[in-house]
Amino acid sequence: MALTIGVDVGGTKVAAGVVDGSGTIVERLWRPTPAQEPDKVAMVIADVVRVLRGRHDVAAVGVGAAGFVDETRSIVRFAPNLAWREEPLRDKVAGLVGLPVIVENDANAMAWGEYRFGAARGESHVVCVTLGTGIGGGIIVDGALYRGRWGMGAEYGHMRVVPGGRPCGCGGRGCWERYASGNALVLDAREAAERDPARAAILLELAGGTLEAVEGVHVAEAAAAGDAAALEAFDRLAEWLGQGLADLTVTLDPGRFVIGGGVSHSAGLFLDRAREVYAERVTARGHRPLADIRKAELGPAAGLVGAADLARQR
Amino acid sequence: MALTIGVDVGGTKVAAGVVDGSGTIVERLWRPTPAQEPDKVAMVIADVVRVLRGRHDVAAVGVGAAGFVDETRSIVRFAPNLAWREEPLRDKVAGLVGLPVIVENDANAMAWGEYRFGAARGESHVVCVTLGTGIGGGIIVDGALYRGRWGMGAEYGHMRVVPGGRPCGCGGRGCWERYASGNALVLDAREAAERDPARAAILLELAGGTLEAVEGVHVAEAAAAGDAAALEAFDRLAEWLGQGLADLTVTLDPGRFVIGGGVSHSAGLFLDRAREVYAERVTARGHRPLADIRKAELGPAAGLVGAADLARQR
Repeated sequence: MALTIGVDVGGTKVAAGVVDGSGTIVERLWRPTPAQEPDKVAMVIADVVRVLRGRHDVAAVGVGAAGFVDETRSIVRFAPNLAWREEPLRDKVAGLVGLPVIVENDANAMAWGEYRFGAARGESHVVCVTLGTGIGGGIIVDGALYRGRWGMGAEYGHMRVVPGGRPCGCGGRGCWERYASGNALVLDAREAAERDPARAAILLELAGGTLEAVEGVHVAEAAAAGDAAALEAFDRLAEWLGQGLADLTVTLDPGRFVIGGGVSHSAGLFLDRAREVYAERVTARGHRPLADIRKAELGPAAGLVGAADLARQR
Repeated sequence: MALTIGVDVGGTKVAAGVVDGSGTIVERLWRPTPAQEPDKVAMVIADVVRVLRGRHDVAAVGVGAAGFVDETRSIVRFAPNLAWREEPLRDKVAGLVGLPVIVENDANAMAWGEYRFGAARGESHVVCVTLGTGIGGGIIVDGALYRGRWGMGAEYGHMRVVPGGRPCGCGGRGCWERYASGNALVLDAREAAERDPARAAILLELAGGTLEAVEGVHVAEAAAAGDAAALEAFDRLAEWLGQGLADLTVTLDPGRFVIGGGVSHSAGLFLDRAREVYAERVTARGHRPLADIRKAELGPAAGLVGAADLARQR
């Protein structure tokens, strides 16, 4: 079976890999993202493809990009972190590399990777929730990605869960990702530490003594070491995650949720509690089968592997 | 093309009709629902089918029921208003009438009716929102009803939109249908009238002078006559409807919403405002096509017509 290249374009790096038909990454490579220069992103992608093609026989390229990709999977309409507006990324990259190219939303590509080779395998209705800086989403229905009419579905990080709540980069307020994500975890930990610094001694020490310096990794490490403020932040995350999964269930009724993204590395600190909250909150509880809630299996490579596989199946 | 019978089982009546392949109702009939006696519902359905079959050559029966129907479309797992729990409705009715029978959630059947013969025609991705006592939902994706893994999708009336909000019959709090439905309209109008009875003079007169007697029809009639409290209730409905459609859009990205149910008869009092709120609130506004928001066309017969058509296509 032919090899394909998967490229995951994030806000800070362009990660690429040559992937075989079983989802194994044969070789990988990365470059920094020229985030402020959209034209250069296509050139960086073309460059990594050129290097990898020099060493492997490659049939197509799949690009996962952090942005709203249109229903033809060729144009990035809007990418909050990459300065893209109506960017014809597929044709640009295809013109530069001379191979078939597909472009997919990065969280969709991750969901597809998990569906083909990871935690979503074997289930017909899967909702993937990627807990990173914000929330990424990808929905599998009957063995295909659900994209919606204009290719912009599965962006449930922007469901409003609190009227008049925390402001969001999308221009709204109270979006789910402001309560259940890596950023939310940091916000909650800082708030808890501010209310009662004595409960945040470990966290503050890890962050070098100041609240402003607290980052996600500190919260995870502090919580694992028993820091009360950090543990409280994870409890809040679990609460909002379980509630959000219940809210998605009333609409989508999936058989399985797959929880990925950087925050999922600390799944032991919140996933059981999220499952409890989910079971308590979902409508018609007691009269419906509950969705299985699993941790993603492929790690940061899921997007790259998924994009490569989508290119293979184009 | 063969005729089929559609049956719409509601909390108060069992409405049946013989429907042809173009969605035209050839004859209709109804009976009161024996809501507290689940076994008798199947018998009532069988009875109306028997009467209609005596006069028409009928090939199959489709039943739309207000409840959670399983993914095999045969068992009503849970019907809040009909005392059904794990009711094998399809087989019961089929045994009594000797015809092929399918069972579908009533709001799904309505959505299907609108998709085949009404306001949802010609659009691949439609989300139907039925504003009645609560909110009913039906989702069309690529020409088929979206049911979810267990047949319980499209119940977005129970998305939580207000943490700790109004209690809901489902056991939760803050469900969307407690803010955007016929019942919510009455609640809001009573609250407005209580705060300032002078603004509710028309409403109170229509209801015979007491707040407790205010019903949905009074609110609609009073608003049409310029009653300030009733108009305020419709404004709140519009606000919550537009917000909820924005929340559904981030997940489902439909090309069209169809708004049906009893409250939609007063669409002139809230639909334009709901469209405005929707456009203001949806994420990535300015970078995405907006869904078209239309009033349903088939009226109360949509469920019956949809169920009959689903039976034809079984």
